[in-house]
Amino acid sequence: MIKVGIVGGTGYTGAELLRLLVRHSEVSLQVITSRGEAGREVADLFPNLRGHLALRFSEPDLATLAACDLVLFATPNGTAMEMVPDLLAAGTRVIDLAADFRLRDPAQWKAWYGLDHHCPELLKEAVYGLPELYREEIREARLIANPGCYPTAVTLALLPLIESAWIDSSDLIADVKSGSSGAGRKAQVRLLMAESGEDFKAYAAAGHRHQPEIVQTLSSRSERPVELLFLPHLLPMIRGIHATLYARLEGERSLEGIHELFAARYRDEPFVDLLPLGAHPETRSVRGINVCRLALHRQGGRVIVLSVIDNLVKGAAGQAVQNLNLMFGLPEGEALDGVALLP
Amino acid sequence: MIKVGIVGGTGYTGAELLRLLVRHSEVSLQVITSRGEAGREVADLFPNLRGHLALRFSEPDLATLAACDLVLFATPNGTAMEMVPDLLAAGTRVIDLAADFRLRDPAQWKAWYGLDHHCPELLKEAVYGLPELYREEIREARLIANPGCYPTAVTLALLPLIESAWIDSSDLIADVKSGSSGAGRKAQVRLLMAESGEDFKAYAAAGHRHQPEIVQTLSSRSERPVELLFLPHLLPMIRGIHATLYARLEGERSLEGIHELFAARYRDEPFVDLLPLGAHPETRSVRGINVCRLALHRQGGRVIVLSVIDNLVKGAAGQAVQNLNLMFGLPEGEALDGVALLP
Amino acid sequence: MIKVGIVGGTGYTGAELLRLLVRHSEVSLQVITSRGEAGREVADLFPNLRGHLALRFSEPDLATLAACDLVLFATPNGTAMEMVPDLLAAGTRVIDLAADFRLRDPAQWKAWYGLDHHCPELLKEAVYGLPELYREEIREARLIANPGCYPTAVTLALLPLIESAWIDSSDLIADVKSGSSGAGRKAQVRLLMAESGEDFKAYAAAGHRHQPEIVQTLSSRSERPVELLFLPHLLPMIRGIHATLYARLEGERSLEGIHELFAARYRDEPFVDLLPLGAHPETRSVRGINVCRLALHRQGGRVIVLSVIDNLVKGAAGQAVQNLNLMFGLPEGEALDGVALLP
Amino acid sequence: MIKVGIVGGTGYTGAELLRLLVRHSEVSLQVITSRGEAGREVADLFPNLRGHLALRFSEPDLATLAACDLVLFATPNGTAMEMVPDLLAAGTRVIDLAADFRLRDPAQWKAWYGLDHHCPELLKEAVYGLPELYREEIREARLIANPGCYPTAVTLALLPLIESAWIDSSDLIADVKSGSSGAGRKAQVRLLMAESGEDFKAYAAAGHRHQPEIVQTLSSRSERPVELLFLPHLLPMIRGIHATLYARLEGERSLEGIHELFAARYRDEPFVDLLPLGAHPETRSVRGINVCRLALHRQGGRVIVLSVIDNLVKGAAGQAVQNLNLMFGLPEGEALDGVALLP
Repeated sequence: MIKVGIVGGTGYTGAELLRLLVRHSEVSLQVITSRGEAGREVADLFPNLRGHLALRFSEPDLATLAACDLVLFATPNGTAMEMVPDLLAAGTRVIDLAADFRLRDPAQWKAWYGLDHHCPELLKEAVYGLPELYREEIREARLIANPGCYPTAVTLALLPLIESAWIDSSDLIADVKSGSSGAGRKAQVRLLMAESGEDFKAYAAAGHRHQPEIVQTLSSRSERPVELLFLPHLLPMIRGIHATLYARLEGERSLEGIHELFAARYRDEPFVDLLPLGAHPETRSVRGINVCRLALHRQGGRVIVLSVIDNLVKGAAGQAVQNLNLMFGLPEGEALDGVALLP
Repeated sequence: MIKVGIVGGTGYTGAELLRLLVRHSEVSLQVITSRGEAGREVADLFPNLRGHLALRFSEPDLATLAACDLVLFATPNGTAMEMVPDLLAAGTRVIDLAADFRLRDPAQWKAWYGLDHHCPELLKEAVYGLPELYREEIREARLIANPGCYPTAVTLALLPLIESAWIDSSDLIADVKSGSSGAGRKAQVRLLMAESGEDFKAYAAAGHRHQPEIVQTLSSRSERPVELLFLPHLLPMIRGIHATLYARLEGERSLEGIHELFAARYRDEPFVDLLPLGAHPETRSVRGINVCRLALHRQGGRVIVLSVIDNLVKGAAGQAVQNLNLMFGLPEGEALDGVALLP
Repeated sequence: MIKVGIVGGTGYTGAELLRLLVRHSEVSLQVITSRGEAGREVADLFPNLRGHLALRFSEPDLATLAACDLVLFATPNGTAMEMVPDLLAAGTRVIDLAADFRLRDPAQWKAWYGLDHHCPELLKEAVYGLPELYREEIREARLIANPGCYPTAVTLALLPLIESAWIDSSDLIADVKSGSSGAGRKAQVRLLMAESGEDFKAYAAAGHRHQPEIVQTLSSRSERPVELLFLPHLLPMIRGIHATLYARLEGERSLEGIHELFAARYRDEPFVDLLPLGAHPETRSVRGINVCRLALHRQGGRVIVLSVIDNLVKGAAGQAVQNLNLMFGLPEGEALDGVALLP
Repeated sequence: MIKVGIVGGTGYTGAELLRLLVRHSEVSLQVITSRGEAGREVADLFPNLRGHLALRFSEPDLATLAACDLVLFATPNGTAMEMVPDLLAAGTRVIDLAADFRLRDPAQWKAWYGLDHHCPELLKEAVYGLPELYREEIREARLIANPGCYPTAVTLALLPLIESAWIDSSDLIADVKSGSSGAGRKAQVRLLMAESGEDFKAYAAAGHRHQPEIVQTLSSRSERPVELLFLPHLLPMIRGIHATLYARLEGERSLEGIHELFAARYRDEPFVDLLPLGAHPETRSVRGINVCRLALHRQGGRVIVLSVIDNLVKGAAGQAVQNLNLMFGLPEGEALDGVALLP
């Protein structure tokens, strides 16, 4: 059994890790930390775990965590980087579900996250945990930077087009929409039911942290510069991201040809599902599961890619479990075989 | 023009007062206070007021408020009682939309609200602002205790039955359900969209502050003791209260007879609407308006009263405006003539 | 492998059976019928099944169904009774998720469902599929009447009190609330998002078909007559039932004692979960799982039982799978071990 | 008083016309037709109208309608064109809230709506009822084609940029999102709460009828060809449209300059509200009111326009009332002075 610790177990990402890991046949949950809830039964805070988990939250403690084979950080940005060097030194592998190791350039990281990076020397070692792109590197990694939710939906939607150079990489638009759980389990007025229910709005139109993360990944596969307009919106629902991508085609490309391109790229990917031509993916079709579902359309000279994920699963905890499975040589889909809850 | 001040303008009750009062032909809004938002344009916080209101929030200041004809308190419980004695002394009339003056017994008040009352001598003078019961007293009052949202829905539903003594007053059950705005505009995790959306639950099953308030009112109209089981639930929506009342009939009473009793009791009430037999009122039918809509059913020996209000209107701000109109000799429905927003 | 057929696979109950059964290790789905969708891929109608199920809907055909070990009816009321006699005669066992075999008295059945019963002789043989009450009979049954959703939530909440005779069985009140999926996947205006979203209302206050079903079950365990006031409401959400039960205590009963009574009654029940004193169950805590979660409170002389289920799981398809497992000697929890999706 | 008839009063557009017109000081509602509900009290179908309207639905009858000064059609596409010629001949003016007179080219109309046009000779006479563009023509018009909901939000967002030729008119993208009421009050499974709640998806990605309507309008103000990629999505809420527009700037244009351009264009428009730089409009800020609220952002070489309306008000019934006011020489804002319901 793989001994696993979770740091920061009281947010939605932590709760989702627990929901998935309590059914993982090869994982033994050793410790779930929370400063605020230390001593409380986890299943008291998250009643869906009653009968599935007997642990209590505990204060974070380096020795306890270092005794684990793997530590998952489900903490606010800037927390993991404080502990990761010591854990790696102790031989413990790490998956950070926050943003601490997603950007390779420490200056860029500081610009977007407002902090000096505590261990910039690890930014190059960290493997970006998108299995569809870095599966082999993930198997060997000590430190995984689990991708952001929007970047997962957007990158998987654009990757075949970028790799094939069938589109103008300097003219990409991502109009993205996220359910409320994407903002985390924070006591903020703007996230109240009475504020965000029956309402829809854009936010961060001047720039969002996930834009440089996507550009970094796509650029690594593109010979030409990548420019991405990125605009997020808040949906009046709980789970789900829908990314709508617009890209200008170069050369003569039929929609059928583009569909074949995607089909070939993702043929062996267990967690990317390409819909038939004409379909429109629904966020609910991936509710609770680790799947990115894609569909392709065309208007004029532009290809439209529709991409849906559950922000807490393929966009966070599920992808982390997929990475865990790869890191420890387990079947990639272990604990990720659920069926989406519909309706 | 009546000069009006509002203390505590950043909650939902305050916002709703503003929504109604900007269209009131006889009211001049003088001041809207908020310690946290002082200096900010009100219409910046509440964009629905853009173009309707040019005021900014200001720090609460006794002299400014005392220059008003009327001050409305839309503050947390325990705030109004600190300022009311001075305002009354200055000749300013007051409507408190919080609970400070709702209970007549200071010991009971302390038991439910956890504070010593600052001016218990005013508890007897305060008029309970339910026009259907105290219209004449309201006209003359210096100090109005605006009823709670649940108490408005429940009291109007039971009043004809209590006054007529057609039911066993010692065996009343109120199963009540409220939308999320009833809990106020507070940064609390339990009120997040991701926590209270797609979910339903009871709360405060051991006892809720609105129970003694209802019992106090009904007792004043009953020769026999009133006993009320009161159980609130939280609805996954924003506005609306639905109260379901169960009472045991005494004597031979047909449903038609009960319907006539209610029809007679509320015939001249502009803001109580009795539905025809067989109907079920919907909360959305009163969304945004100052109406309590009632329907009557019977199963076995029990009468069932279904009662809906908009918790922010007839359950709070609308009722306060109704009281304001009565206090200043205006048409009772001034600024309260809207049509509910449906769908 | 148990060969299973499903009649009526296009409603929410049918879709939920499929969601559960595609992960059942001992079930082989042979046929899923739908007159309207015959020939269409099931996973095209229910995209959550993509990759999990390769079947197409087919026209109902007796021979094909009779070749199954078990046929599940997820059809409108009045459909199963037409085919069940032939299936039983062919040696095929049946679980009816509709109401055809729930009431033992054909006259009562006709009164509530408006049809002459096609095979009244089977009403006595049919076993009411509530494992917590009829586990042994279910193991041997040829024909299971799977309980209604409200009856499951209400019966489990009242059973210990009825069996112990601690309450006045002639004075029971069930104030119940259901999500929209409980009304089925029907093209009706009243069920539109724009009609039932942001709204709450009671319905069928004059009487509902689930009332006699509950009374029949409770009466079988009560020496005294059972009288139940039953009032359903429609919640602005998709999944979940919350039943609030009010019963008058007889004798001196502490809340702690009642809690012990429930704890003892359900100690060995895998799918009934009694919460600690003071708790309030949330519908979301059972979203997608086969659990009935209960909590106990007391006000005055009345005990309050709060009971939540997922109407499509423990209230329909999950309970059917539980019955299937019992009928075929499998572990009772096979395919029912999921963790609720929260948030 | 202006005598007004409404044809097709049972949909959401008809209900919204009624909500607005019952408070219109110069309108006398003469007749509201519905084949399906003839004889039924309007306030029985729409309980928000109880106490505001005493009419019953009636069968459509040409003589009765021709006796009105104005007839509003809130009917499915293809209905108004059958009656309009006779009404105009009788001297009755007409506003069609459906699409029958929106496209000037009958061949294009047939291509998108699948019917031969019944009176193509009227297509040229019909005035497109967007007051911000055709105010003077509307005053004199006999026949108004009330704009579609999406076209209102999109056209107002792009108009200043098209008129000024500051953008490349051949490279426009409209990513639009609508609440469920935009699809109408139709008994369709896809619009059920259980289908469209907690879900988000695109639809009609291959082409939508509102695209040619927008292009027609913008082209009339552009010297260069207009090409518009148009992609609609369905929001899990009831009211509101959010249009996100992307356009490529030509020439050196600062965001401040663009803001001034919009400010100047809409300075005297009572129902277009430009937000300050940095803001993001929310659909709820226009819930129930006739306002289009705009905000401007920029990323790279593209301007982003955010545009929100209430699809039933500025996107349908409110705009029709605005047109009615213009046609009859009334204050343009009569009956349109409400404050949005927030929260």
